[in-house]
Order: sequence, then C-alpha cells, then structure tokens
Amino acid sequence: MDIAMIGLGKMGGNMASRLLRGGHGLVVFNRSPEPVRAAEAEGATGATSIEDVVVKLNTPRAVWLMLPAGSITEEVIDQLSGMMSVGDVLIDGGNSNYKDTMRRAATLADKGIYFVDCGTSGGIWGLSEGYSLMVGGRPEAIAIIRPALETLAPAVDQGWAHVGPSGAGHFVKMIHNGIEYGMMQAYAEGFEILRAKREFDLDLHQIAELWRYGSVVRSWLLDLTAAALAEDPELSDLRGWVADSGEGRWTVFEAIDQDVPAPVITLALQMRFVSRQDESYAAKLLAAMRNQFGGHAVKRVE
Amino acid sequence: MDIAMIGLGKMGGNMASRLLRGGHGLVVFNRSPEPVRAAEAEGATGATSIEDVVVKLNTPRAVWLMLPAGSITEEVIDQLSGMMSVGDVLIDGGNSNYKDTMRRAATLADKGIYFVDCGTSGGIWGLSEGYSLMVGGRPEAIAIIRPALETLAPAVDQGWAHVGPSGAGHFVKMIHNGIEYGMMQAYAEGFEILRAKREFDLDLHQIAELWRYGSVVRSWLLDLTAAALAEDPELSDLRGWVADSGEGRWTVFEAIDQDVPAPVITLALQMRFVSRQDESYAAKLLAAMRNQFGGHAVKRVE
Amino acid sequence: MDIAMIGLGKMGGNMASRLLRGGHGLVVFNRSPEPVRAAEAEGATGATSIEDVVVKLNTPRAVWLMLPAGSITEEVIDQLSGMMSVGDVLIDGGNSNYKDTMRRAATLADKGIYFVDCGTSGGIWGLSEGYSLMVGGRPEAIAIIRPALETLAPAVDQGWAHVGPSGAGHFVKMIHNGIEYGMMQAYAEGFEILRAKREFDLDLHQIAELWRYGSVVRSWLLDLTAAALAEDPELSDLRGWVADSGEGRWTVFEAIDQDVPAPVITLALQMRFVSRQDESYAAKLLAAMRNQFGGHAVKRVE
Amino acid sequence: MDIAMIGLGKMGGNMASRLLRGGHGLVVFNRSPEPVRAAEAEGATGATSIEDVVVKLNTPRAVWLMLPAGSITEEVIDQLSGMMSVGDVLIDGGNSNYKDTMRRAATLADKGIYFVDCGTSGGIWGLSEGYSLMVGGRPEAIAIIRPALETLAPAVDQGWAHVGPSGAGHFVKMIHNGIEYGMMQAYAEGFEILRAKREFDLDLHQIAELWRYGSVVRSWLLDLTAAALAEDPELSDLRGWVADSGEGRWTVFEAIDQDVPAPVITLALQMRFVSRQDESYAAKLLAAMRNQFGGHAVKRVE
Repeated sequence: MDIAMIGLGKMGGNMASRLLRGGHGLVVFNRSPEPVRAAEAEGATGATSIEDVVVKLNTPRAVWLMLPAGSITEEVIDQLSGMMSVGDVLIDGGNSNYKDTMRRAATLADKGIYFVDCGTSGGIWGLSEGYSLMVGGRPEAIAIIRPALETLAPAVDQGWAHVGPSGAGHFVKMIHNGIEYGMMQAYAEGFEILRAKREFDLDLHQIAELWRYGSVVRSWLLDLTAAALAEDPELSDLRGWVADSGEGRWTVFEAIDQDVPAPVITLALQMRFVSRQDESYAAKLLAAMRNQFGGHAVKRVE
Repeated sequence: MDIAMIGLGKMGGNMASRLLRGGHGLVVFNRSPEPVRAAEAEGATGATSIEDVVVKLNTPRAVWLMLPAGSITEEVIDQLSGMMSVGDVLIDGGNSNYKDTMRRAATLADKGIYFVDCGTSGGIWGLSEGYSLMVGGRPEAIAIIRPALETLAPAVDQGWAHVGPSGAGHFVKMIHNGIEYGMMQAYAEGFEILRAKREFDLDLHQIAELWRYGSVVRSWLLDLTAAALAEDPELSDLRGWVADSGEGRWTVFEAIDQDVPAPVITLALQMRFVSRQDESYAAKLLAAMRNQFGGHAVKRVE
Repeated sequence: MDIAMIGLGKMGGNMASRLLRGGHGLVVFNRSPEPVRAAEAEGATGATSIEDVVVKLNTPRAVWLMLPAGSITEEVIDQLSGMMSVGDVLIDGGNSNYKDTMRRAATLADKGIYFVDCGTSGGIWGLSEGYSLMVGGRPEAIAIIRPALETLAPAVDQGWAHVGPSGAGHFVKMIHNGIEYGMMQAYAEGFEILRAKREFDLDLHQIAELWRYGSVVRSWLLDLTAAALAEDPELSDLRGWVADSGEGRWTVFEAIDQDVPAPVITLALQMRFVSRQDESYAAKLLAAMRNQFGGHAVKRVE
Repeated sequence: MDIAMIGLGKMGGNMASRLLRGGHGLVVFNRSPEPVRAAEAEGATGATSIEDVVVKLNTPRAVWLMLPAGSITEEVIDQLSGMMSVGDVLIDGGNSNYKDTMRRAATLADKGIYFVDCGTSGGIWGLSEGYSLMVGGRPEAIAIIRPALETLAPAVDQGWAHVGPSGAGHFVKMIHNGIEYGMMQAYAEGFEILRAKREFDLDLHQIAELWRYGSVVRSWLLDLTAAALAEDPELSDLRGWVADSGEGRWTVFEAIDQDVPAPVITLALQMRFVSRQDESYAAKLLAAMRNQFGGHAVKRVE
C-alpha cells in the first residue's frame, strides 16, 4: 500500500525501512533533511513539507506520525487536519497520552478523517524483529492500513492487534511501559544482590546468559541484560542515572484514578527519580531527626 | 552416565524422564512406590530404599536429590553421608537455603564426598524444554556429573553453568526466584489496570498474545500468562490466594543483610502476604483512627 | 470581628461554635436548616440563603466556606463572586485542590475580591483544642481575618501561619494529609505485627498507652490509637475498609510531577485501595501464573 | 532502692543521673573511667570492675545493663551470671534482639537469676522528660525493680509497663523502632515535596512549627523536626546519609516470619540503604537496559 511516514527518528526511520523492504510505496518527511535523503536512498519518495506529503499521496491517504509526544504532535495533527480529506487515515504511532488521543480522534472524526492510535513497542530492534503494535480506532480505518501493520509486525498475524476504540491503543501501550518499568527494576535489584555477594565472586554475565535458557525469568529484557553485561559486568563507565518517559507516570496516575493498587510499577518509577537525585533532602532530614532525638552523629558536607 | 534420582515429585519425576530419554542409566527412589513404577516403565532401575540406591550404583556414585527444602532433605543427606564413599557426588537440586548448603558441603567434604548444589528452574515445562541449572561446588565434582547436566539443560552448552563454590548455585537460584516474584507482580498489576478500564472493554487474552511478539515485555512468563488467560480472561473461578516458597523471603533477608535496597522484590513478596489475609488488622486500625480524629464513618461487621 | 460561615457540617459546625465562644459576630448558612438552628441557639445569626449571608454582613465582608471539595465549592464561589464587593474576603477552609484555588483566586482578584485558602486540620477535636490553619493569599486579606484565625487556632500565635500566596495554604494542607497517611500506615503495620506475635499475648491498648509518654513515637495519632483500642483491642466489629480523600492522591500526583520519590506516602495510599478490594485480579493472575509454570495448586471459588 | 548501672554512654549516663536525682543508691561501672568519675560527682558509687559492681551491692542485687547490642552484652551477661546469686535481678535496657533475650532469660533462670528486658525509648531527652520503658520478664522480678522504673519513666504510672514474659519488652521496643522509621520517612517525604515546590517558596521551619499545634500530624518527632529546621531549613551542611540500627531490620524479618505485610516500615528501612549508596548498580543496569532496547543515551562517568 501507499503510506507516508512523518518523523524519521530512531523509531520512524527504522519503520520506514521495514515498510520499504515490505514493498510498500512510502512518502517520507522529517524536519531535518538527512533522514529523508537516507530513506530516498532506500526507495522512499521524499517530501519537502507536510503539505507536500499530503499532495504526494492518493486518497484515501494514510499518514503515519512517529513524533515525540507533546506539542509537536499536536501541531502536526492540527496542520494535517486542515489538509486531509474525508476517508483519509491519520495514524499516531508515538507515545501520546490516550486522553489526548481520544480528544484528537473526536475532532478529526468531525471532519470525516480517521484517527488511529498505534502504541508501538520494540525499540531499535523492531527493524529486524518487527514491532509490537497496539492499535485503537475504527475497524474500517484499520482495514485500510492493515497491509502496513502486517509488515511492521513480527509476522502477518502476530504482534499486532486491534485492541479497542480510539485511545485504547495508546492506553495499552502505556500499561505495557508500566509493566516494563517493574520488570526492569526486578532484574536490576536481583543483579545488584548477586553482585553484593562478594564472597561468591559471581560472574553476572554468565548468570544472565544461563538464565536465558529454560529459566522462569527468561525474557527479551534478559537477553538485552546479557548483552549489556557482556563487555563489562561492572558497568564501570556508566552512571546510574535513569530517565523515564511519560508513560510510566501516566500508568501510575491511571492506577490511582482507578483505585487500583500498583505498588511495584509505582516504586519502579520512583526508584528512577531516586537515581536522578544528586542528594536527597528527605535523607538529610532523617539524619537531622536522628541527631535531634538520639544525639546520633551526622555526616557533614566537607 | 549412571546416576540416581531420589524424589520423583513434579520436578524429580520429569527430570528422571529427561535423563532416561537422554540415554543415561538411572536408579530411582521415592517414598511412595507409584512414581518408581512409572520410572521403571520408562527404563529406570527402581530402588526399594536409600540404601538400595547406594548399592545399585557403581563408584564414583552420583546421587541427585529432588526433595522439598527442609527437614526431609537434611535427613536424607545425613543418611547418605553414612553410606556414600570418597569421591562420590551428592547433588541437591531442590530449593535449599544456600547457608544450609554451605554447611552440608563442609560436612560432606570432611568425608571426601562431593556435594553439588544445583538450583533448578523450569517448572513442569522442563521435561520438554530443558531445565535452567545453576550449579555450585567443586569443579572436579561437576566434571563427573556434566553429562547429566548437559542432558537436563535445554542444550549441551546453554542454560546451565558452574557459577561458583558450594552454595553459589542455590544462592543464584534464590535470587532468580526473587526476580520472578517482581516480574510476576509487574504483569499482574498491569493486567489489573487494563481490566479496570471498563470503558475500553479490553480483551486481556488478546493483549497478552499480542505482546508476546516484538514487544519489550515479551517473556516466558508472558507466554504462560497468555495461556492462563486463554480460557477465561476473568479468571472467574480462581481465588486470589498466592503462596510463596522460601526463596522469595530469603532473597529479601539477603538484600537486607547486604544493605541493598530491593523494594520491588520485597513488595512483590508482601503483596502475596496481602493476598492470603482474610482481613487486615492494620486496615481496621486505620479505619478506627480515621473515626477517632475525623468522626469518619466506619464499616461494621454485619 | 464579624464573619460568616457557610457549611455547618462536622468541621464547619464546630468552627462556628469556636468562633462564637471567641466572641465574634457570626452569620451562618447551611443547606439543611437544623445546623443553622443549632448555631443560632449558640448566638449566631442565621441566614436563609447565600444571598442573605451577603446582605447580613457589613463591608468588608468575610465569608468562610467549609464545604466538601468539588462542584459544590465551585458553585458557591461562583455565586458569591457575583454578590461580594471590592475588598471583601472569601475564605475556602475546605480540602480544595490548590490548582483550583490558584485559578479561583485569580478570577476573584479580577473583581477585587480577596480569596484566602485555609487548609484546616484538627478534625472533630478542633472545637476544644483549636485548629491547625495553613493560610495562603494576600497579606492585606489575612490581616482582615486575623482575629478569626487567632480564635480558631489553638492559641493566638500557635498553630496558624500565613504560608504563602494563594494556593500555598491548600498545598501545605495536601502534603500534611500525605504525611498523615504515611504515619497512620506505619502505626497500623506495627500494631499488626505486635498482634501477630500470639506467643507474647500482648495487650495492644496497654502498649499504645505506654508509648504515649516518653517514647520517640508519641503523637496525637497515637493518643487516638490508644483511645480506639481502649474498648476492644481486637477491633472485632470493624471492617478493614479505609476511605481516602482527594488529598492523599494529589500528594502522590504532585510528588511525581516534581520527580520527587515519595514511596512511603504513595504505598500508604495504595494500601487503602487494597483495603477496599473485595478480591484482587492481580492476585488471581499470580495464582494462575504459578499454576502454569509450576503446576502449583490454586484455590478455586466454591 | 539500690541498683547498679553498667554502661554509661549517652543513654546509660543520663539514666544514671535520673536515678540519682530520684534518690536511689547507685553503683556505676563503665569501661572507660571518665563517665564513672562524672557519676560519682553526682553521688554515685564508682566500681572498678564488673566484679566490684557485684561486691558493692546487697542482695537481692539489681544490675542494669545499658550496653550496645551484640557481643559485649553477651559477654557481660556471661560474666555476671557467674557472680550473681539466686534472687538477683539483671536488667538489659539495651536494644538486644528479643530472641537473644529469651535464650538468656532461660539460661539465667536455671541459676535462679531473674532476667528482665527493658526496651528503652526517649533518646537524649529522657534525662529531663523520662524514658518510655517496655518491660518483659517475671512479675516478681519487676516488683523488685519497680522503684527504679517509676523514676526512669516520665511519671510513676505513665510511660512504663510490664508488657509480657521475657523477650516481650525487647520485642515491643523493636516494633516501636520500626514504626519510628515509617513515621520519620513520611515526614521526610512530605517536607521534600514542600521544598520542591519552589514557586511557593515555603518556609519549612514555619510549617513544622505551625503543624505542632492542632494538626493531625503533631508529634514529638515533629517537634524535633521543627528544632532541626530552626537554624537552616535547607540543612545545607548535612549529608543525606542515614544509619539504621538493628531493630528496624529485625522488625522487617519478624513481619516476614509472621506473613504480615509491612510495606511502609520495610520501605523506610530500604530508603536508608539507598541513602548510604554512593552509586546504585541497579540504576546502572537500568540505564544499560534502556540503552540496549531503545538506543537511549546513557550518562558516562567522566
């Protein structure tokens, strides 16, 4: 099928390549021109603007956005909503908040434009292994873009699904990321305890490799952990500074809004906050309290 | 090689079958006779007592214990230590505490008997997929039992490793289980939030299946989750009562003994305690306090 | 001073009494008439409507709202904003979200009406012991209502303060409640462990009383705990069902928005969710997973 | 009454003073001589050795130990058990593990010596305000030392109690400290969020003072917090490094042994571990995983 990809970053660029390898006709646009050139070299048709993307597609158009969540996505959707036609399909494959998605879908529906949200997982490995795609929106819109979904996914009938109405795709992707935080933290804690047991002098890379086969904790994240530990199990040159994207915190907000306890996912998020604190005021205050009631020694800044 | 298996429960029985299929000569013993009969039908040599096991093996003997952690393991090791000879190898494949293992290994070493601890993961699927084996002990002992390890593991050189001295195998298995608790809780929380979002009417089985391919959270536990959700995504006839074996709590004790924070693993354990409480005295006391300071209504037992 | 109180529930009714005892002239209004009658009996001037409240006060008017957070507060503020005059002071003593407060203050400032937010703590004991008052807004507005604040507080110069601009009062009260959740949960857990130690047959009421004097954990919440345990330390007729007001969850949202770890406050909130769940889907799924991988027995609904 | 105090550190020294002020006859001993001199100056009889303590008391002797938990306590009890007589009372006022206490009580009972465990709270303020005393042991032994308990406590009938058999006193003190950890962490988190809200420029000392009167969160720990914040609310010269004594972790072990969820107390302990980590291997591993799956940037050690 013919489809456009707007946003050729780490995710969008690879997805464009996978679509081209799948034999689709692809129009591409990116704010900076280099990724457009690269995609052209692989057979894509470069566009010089968002308007040019719209011009270069036949109706019903299918335009896939792969942009950072936030204002740029809002802006591009606004622009496209003025250019696209009844029956066109606009897909947001980024990590947008599902509430924004529901609002945008309603606005676009008023103009007869289909809005499909596609939570996309798989990272930089998606190019070779395929992407996990959680799709929300109207069935007739999803029918139109199905050939692209089948190509992007690991297999024609695996790793993608139409999970519900508009917003459901981004909602499911949000929870996916919350689970991911919890799993990552579980591995990280486990390996830290292994490492702390100095008397056994364990080889953490060996253990990660061993667990990859036959164990209950085998997973793709463990495969990656083994890869990360291959060179230097001490991770000596890394700083323990861990970013978080919006979806982890949205998961926590959602759990609270639903009165659902999600203690492990929530703590995994909070441990990332901890990792980014140079110093903890809370800990200072604890030290000060202990000093007050017990005369316990405190450590002073030198 | 020739080897004995003592304890033919869910784990030991399947391991016996896998060893037999691998062409090893196997002597088997179990407290109740039926599993012995079953193993004989597959080609094993049944023994009528622990003494008979020892008699039926040539030296250096290799005896694999697959018993519940605790007093029965202690008792059988005591018995065998009086019957086995210098150079024999006794393997504990169960979930023993690594501190017990270190003590037992020292005692047996005094008699010239090798003691090998083998943390074993894989559950009831190990028969077909192979077991993950975390092996601790002396290299010369492990060399003796290597053919059995290569058969039990998923592949000759995958899923098993000699991770360190006596105790290290059970230590690594213990942490494995701690990680498992954290991962399971992460999935469980995520699926509970998905389910709570009634407006999207999500199909939890569909989502579990979808995530199995290409997503960051794909894992064997997710494969099992998908299987569990296949029949009834509501799990209507299940009670939310979750047991825990010793290894989760030992992981928490170890983390605390090492001054290592392991908040997610610890909470995953505690949520299992919660699942088993009919009522929480803590929650009653919270309700009573709120009533005291704010005059807030409490719910009375009817 | 002359002041009006709108909302004569558990909090507002007691505050009206305390103001009357302090010699202030008080106009009162409540949706249902009984509390108005009661306040009149104590010397208040009853009003028949919000308009009547405004009519019965001289300028600059001071009107104190003691209403449930949410739509009713919004509605009454809207009404009053159309009736009050430049230089009047409207006080919101309820548990409003500080972001709503900031918005309302800006709207009222456009009309020249002062809006003061007063986070109020103390519960039903405030009548006799005085209220803790966390006040946000313009200094000139707070100067006007200072006599009322000095009467409501435990002492003229204790237990109340002007903590910052509009919103700061409700913000500080919000965090106050977050801390309260954490403290309550800490006590609740401790007493549950004491109770679980059946071999010592501890008298929980005795221990709460003992700790009230000289111990590091002495507090007003402990005083209340002792009172709650006086009759029946088993709390036999109470259900462990714990409500939460908005402020606990807002504290968690705020912490996350600020990238501040607040694990204990957050968990205290989540344990209240747990207390209100009849059954946990997460726990069911854990049981189902254990059954899948280990063949572990599950408990079935009978 | 006549009593001896062995161990004149921060706690024991102050307790000696309080006993002397209460008119008791006091024999004192300490490893280093200076505190003995100081107590002599207040009216105590100095002893030159543990044997000398025993010699200087009439029977039935009462000897109070105020020593660090661990080997020194074990050693001194061993020594005294060989010197004391039937009917004498040995009191352990330190933070011993209640299981050690139960064992010691049984051993001493065989010799006819009473062993009383007295969990002691109050810190350096106990001298002036009295100590909270949680007493375990035989009623007849506690009757003997009752005059000393009444003096040490805040009032004759407040702040001390005979809570159960041997071990119960230290058990209750252990849980007391667990609760203390949770409360402290709740305050610490709350104040950190207040501080993070830079737009309100809150005065944390003012807020702590304000909450001391009338609020639900008023407590002795809050009084101390206010004192700690008086000089420098930023705590600029303090490091956020927080020690923990044995009792917090013993509380967690006990909760787990009892299958009781104690998530807040446990996390409070773990946040102290976090405060003492220069760098977190777990966080490094999280950063490494994110880099592996998403190509996310990591921070390198410079």
